[in-house]
Amino acid sequence: MDTAVEPEEGLRERKKRETRLAIHRAALELAVEFGLDGLTVDAIAERAGVSARTFFNYFPAKDDAILGSYGADPEPLLALIAGRPVGESPREIVRFVAHRRVEALVADPELWAMRREMTLREPSLGLRFLGIYARADRALVEAILNRLRAERPLSADDELGLAVEAYAALGAFRAAIRLHIDGGYADLPLPEVLDRAFARL
Amino acid sequence: MDTAVEPEEGLRERKKRETRLAIHRAALELAVEFGLDGLTVDAIAERAGVSARTFFNYFPAKDDAILGSYGADPEPLLALIAGRPVGESPREIVRFVAHRRVEALVADPELWAMRREMTLREPSLGLRFLGIYARADRALVEAILNRLRAERPLSADDELGLAVEAYAALGAFRAAIRLHIDGGYADLPLPEVLDRAFARL
Repeated sequence: MDTAVEPEEGLRERKKRETRLAIHRAALELAVEFGLDGLTVDAIAERAGVSARTFFNYFPAKDDAILGSYGADPEPLLALIAGRPVGESPREIVRFVAHRRVEALVADPELWAMRREMTLREPSLGLRFLGIYARADRALVEAILNRLRAERPLSADDELGLAVEAYAALGAFRAAIRLHIDGGYADLPLPEVLDRAFARL
Repeated sequence: MDTAVEPEEGLRERKKRETRLAIHRAALELAVEFGLDGLTVDAIAERAGVSARTFFNYFPAKDDAILGSYGADPEPLLALIAGRPVGESPREIVRFVAHRRVEALVADPELWAMRREMTLREPSLGLRFLGIYARADRALVEAILNRLRAERPLSADDELGLAVEAYAALGAFRAAIRLHIDGGYADLPLPEVLDRAFARL
């Protein structure tokens, strides 16, 4: 339990997060049901119980709503990292963030399954999803380096070593996700696959 | 030198590769010069000295021509891997492929600089680029696992360990590229940064 270091979420933030999730879910449900082509922002907004104007406060277009906003906003990530103990290694920070992401996936398997179906059905969505994840990875490594730079001076060699450690740990995360989806680990809970992947690093 | 294990490229393949590159270069040049908005397939085809019909034999749309076809076709990658010695580790296979990619980047720095400028100027292009790289990484790991499966039987634990090794090595590659672009390694040749990154793995 590390609730003490968690940034506190205000009522307004929670409401925003819930509205965003409701729009994302509605977009996914409609896309899975009726396909991407005929899908309109109005239909998504209606299913989510919001106005089209509210929709556009959260997402610029329907594709973005289908993908959700994963990684779009670096703030929660930075807050999460800021709460980690001083001196923690890139590997351990990545491991912590990976477990948080996995918990979110596991907590809402229906959403994950719909997202997966849509990215398989529509390769262009799949590509954007991979891009979003890669951008989030990059933001995470950047945040980790910034944090460590604030702790102590880093040489170019230090930075390379730390970046390699962080990206390699993200590789373990990626491997866990891939083998949970496609490999012989479908029956093992994802957090457990993640622990095994980190043990193999 | 490992020319002995290189797949031989026929005259027809070479011509196709050159045409593809000419279209990619023309698309990038025009996009950098005049921006993305007014850019047409006709203008790209004209600058590349091909017909619009030929353009569409190589790329489905102008965005794809700007991004090039990196990672789109897994065949060259599979041929490259097929030529590696039996028993080579995922780490060494990734290292070999990474050096090949870096050589291609270094051989044409102008193309790389234009691509970089466009992906910074147009975040949606940048996102697709990241997605393309992530998809190519996934194809590479899949190809490595398939190759090793053909060499010996793999348990689920073996596969996880090998996938972690391959993705971690791809992480070293990513770290080298990032620090060469943004970090204190701008003056060091990229192949050398890559070697240092793998040494830190």
